[in-house]
Amino acid sequence: MTHAPADAAFADTLRDRLSPKAFREAEPRYFEEPRGRWSSPNGLVLAPGDVEEVRTILMAANEARVRVVPYGGGTGLVGGQVIGAGAAPLVLSMERMNRIREVFPEENVIVAEAGVILQDLHDAAEKVDRLFPMSLAAKGTARIGGNLATNAGGVNVLRYGNTRELCLGLEAVLPDGRVLSGLTRLRKDNTGYDLRNLLIGSEGTLAVITAAALKLAPVPPEQGTAILVVESPEAALSLLSLARGQLGDGVSAFELIDGTGLDFLEETMPQVKRPFAPAPPWMVLIDVGLARGNDPQEALMALFEAAAGEGLVSDGVIAQSEGQRAELWDLRETIPLANREIGGVCSHDVSLPLSVIPDFIRRGAELVAGLGPFRINCFGHLGDGNLHYNLFPPKGETRDAYMPRTAEIYEAVHDLVVSLGGSFSAEHGVGRLKVGELERYGDPVRLELMRGIKRLFDPNGIMNPGAVLAAG
Amino acid sequence: MTHAPADAAFADTLRDRLSPKAFREAEPRYFEEPRGRWSSPNGLVLAPGDVEEVRTILMAANEARVRVVPYGGGTGLVGGQVIGAGAAPLVLSMERMNRIREVFPEENVIVAEAGVILQDLHDAAEKVDRLFPMSLAAKGTARIGGNLATNAGGVNVLRYGNTRELCLGLEAVLPDGRVLSGLTRLRKDNTGYDLRNLLIGSEGTLAVITAAALKLAPVPPEQGTAILVVESPEAALSLLSLARGQLGDGVSAFELIDGTGLDFLEETMPQVKRPFAPAPPWMVLIDVGLARGNDPQEALMALFEAAAGEGLVSDGVIAQSEGQRAELWDLRETIPLANREIGGVCSHDVSLPLSVIPDFIRRGAELVAGLGPFRINCFGHLGDGNLHYNLFPPKGETRDAYMPRTAEIYEAVHDLVVSLGGSFSAEHGVGRLKVGELERYGDPVRLELMRGIKRLFDPNGIMNPGAVLAAG
Repeated sequence: MTHAPADAAFADTLRDRLSPKAFREAEPRYFEEPRGRWSSPNGLVLAPGDVEEVRTILMAANEARVRVVPYGGGTGLVGGQVIGAGAAPLVLSMERMNRIREVFPEENVIVAEAGVILQDLHDAAEKVDRLFPMSLAAKGTARIGGNLATNAGGVNVLRYGNTRELCLGLEAVLPDGRVLSGLTRLRKDNTGYDLRNLLIGSEGTLAVITAAALKLAPVPPEQGTAILVVESPEAALSLLSLARGQLGDGVSAFELIDGTGLDFLEETMPQVKRPFAPAPPWMVLIDVGLARGNDPQEALMALFEAAAGEGLVSDGVIAQSEGQRAELWDLRETIPLANREIGGVCSHDVSLPLSVIPDFIRRGAELVAGLGPFRINCFGHLGDGNLHYNLFPPKGETRDAYMPRTAEIYEAVHDLVVSLGGSFSAEHGVGRLKVGELERYGDPVRLELMRGIKRLFDPNGIMNPGAVLAAG
Repeated sequence: MTHAPADAAFADTLRDRLSPKAFREAEPRYFEEPRGRWSSPNGLVLAPGDVEEVRTILMAANEARVRVVPYGGGTGLVGGQVIGAGAAPLVLSMERMNRIREVFPEENVIVAEAGVILQDLHDAAEKVDRLFPMSLAAKGTARIGGNLATNAGGVNVLRYGNTRELCLGLEAVLPDGRVLSGLTRLRKDNTGYDLRNLLIGSEGTLAVITAAALKLAPVPPEQGTAILVVESPEAALSLLSLARGQLGDGVSAFELIDGTGLDFLEETMPQVKRPFAPAPPWMVLIDVGLARGNDPQEALMALFEAAAGEGLVSDGVIAQSEGQRAELWDLRETIPLANREIGGVCSHDVSLPLSVIPDFIRRGAELVAGLGPFRINCFGHLGDGNLHYNLFPPKGETRDAYMPRTAEIYEAVHDLVVSLGGSFSAEHGVGRLKVGELERYGDPVRLELMRGIKRLFDPNGIMNPGAVLAAG
């Protein structure tokens, strides 16, 4: 499909139909992404202030065949927010639609516009003594519209589900300006096909999400956190099973930490307090939320003792205060920053059936050893079967010499993952990074139906073309 | 669209391509539904034994333009399983595809074919010390494929979600015989548009679900149940809030019971033990699942005392044994049977934002009083905002005289529900009963997209035509 540029002439056609505030300076950040792999050609940045302005912009773009990139916090890791070569795009930044529209504490519901920053959503929930459970390292920048568009995961999926499971209703604008008004706050609503979940995870290729009704949760009355040293990935899984047996679904997060992650922290941020030195090969961060009257330290100690009795764990730190809990979580959340300092060669966001994870870690290490002298930092949301399997250059080297090999490495690792029944994109999405993977590994019937749905929603192909599906 | 009948000549074309076991006797039960409002014309009943047989049947039907009704346990309450007037249909019964394909206790996953009866799924989970949480009164007959096709709700949605939230992956056959192979057991898999949730809740109008990978849950280590007498619907909601404050999401079910329900039990099944006589106007059944070491009776007693202190509850029964728990649950599950004995005039399956429920109950009673001398039994899944708002004739009368008025009553009640931000179908689906409601109350943009999706999946319109969307 041929697209027109979002140039000055196009901008002028909108000048008297939008508030002057909608016209943003075309700063470089709108055309880049965190890993610096892709960029957009310089284009037009528009920030609508309400649904009506979104409609105006989309109708103009649809008529003129201008490519539109819906833009949240720009923190995505798969290039969904940068459109690559071609006509200058229209970056539709949701930053001005950042209102919490309504809060219903007694219903555990919050209605937020797409541009609300995740941290602000957390704060708004906390203000009414509630929890918005979805949380990830980029929460200070990521916006909820982007989290919805990518069905973001994060650290609390084990207990609360992905962003999808936290969304009750959506308001969205189709490329031709029609508004999908589905901002219901109902827990049950079986009235036809599920378009909400079709838009969630569609990465801005079907419509622009403008607002959402989201679930809040009660703040668990008693919370606790520990990092336990486990003997192996197998032991980590047995510990998960033991923990869920003892605490039911009181286990809210279960994160695998690779000793390499602590080594990276030592190398790049020696000021960060590390609980064990030297770093043991494998650790697990476990977070629990329990009913009133339970002592979370006691519960975690009982878990540790039972696990030690089975030879699963050898050491551990149980937070004794909220301050210590925050420190343990900071440690977990700082690992991605340390990774960035070291400079990764390949970062895989994979998921696997839980029971094959130890096998994957063993076979992955063998595979990678055959590919070169890489250091592996394999960490992530073990309770969800989601690993961030990241490869780094040997100590003392930079990644530059290895970058030409990334395609080969991605393919080898993803082949292994898929052969074990796993997914090449657990929580980051397809974006532009994994379009080839989706074509290679995806069910062809599903892909055909996806292309049909894309044509139905976006017949002119203006919505984030080239993301998820190859541009037509 | 014109359809051909599934007559003897059509059956003969399949005779040598299917196992003889696939040809079932065309018993009346396949052409009726529990409430006796609709029926199908007598047609052909085929029960495929595997995916290949499903493909064979659908391809033949698609080519011949024969209408297909996917058929599970036949327990649906909105006529989704009976096709109404027109050419003789092909009833595609999933009864022979009733295998549990695999169980992964360590992953909390079970893979079941569509024809597995819900109770058998419960039993298979229990055998490995796990819980399949979705449960409803028809569990002895309903099949999981039907539960998926209608996104069934039931009594544990508050804690575990609807059927949708319990499904990780689907296998399905499109009307042209293509197979959607999505039987993943992954908790996170962000690889393109969500077709799984599009099929879930599509009521057999897009494809035939043949198998699903479903979530299991750990059995909560400590469980308890109580029925508490609440002063009013407002008090019931305050009690829910108090319970969740004390027990976090340890509250697994929170069911409103109307005194009228107990009166109906007394009238129709005096042998069923009732905890209070005379029946108080409102009660709540509350079920809790707690971490090991908690005493559920104590927790429920503490809740009762706190609630009594706030004037919310006046009496109650806390189960002291598993046997007593089962008795309290039996009481709840027997109410729909008592309703059927009395003979309802209208049964509404509505949902509302939690905070407007007391207002709905008050205004609904006024509305109904203006419509006639009906008895209201308003019960259901209060924690999910889902009420079964059912109207019955006065004591001593049968419903016959009132049946001509059902359309008028449905419209009045649904108008009220929708005006309060609620839904006219919470968990039963649209089926054939509520096609008009969906057209009247549904977002027209959403309906247009739904019709487009229907054409994409089922261009010949053979899949359960007339359900969800008016037949084209």
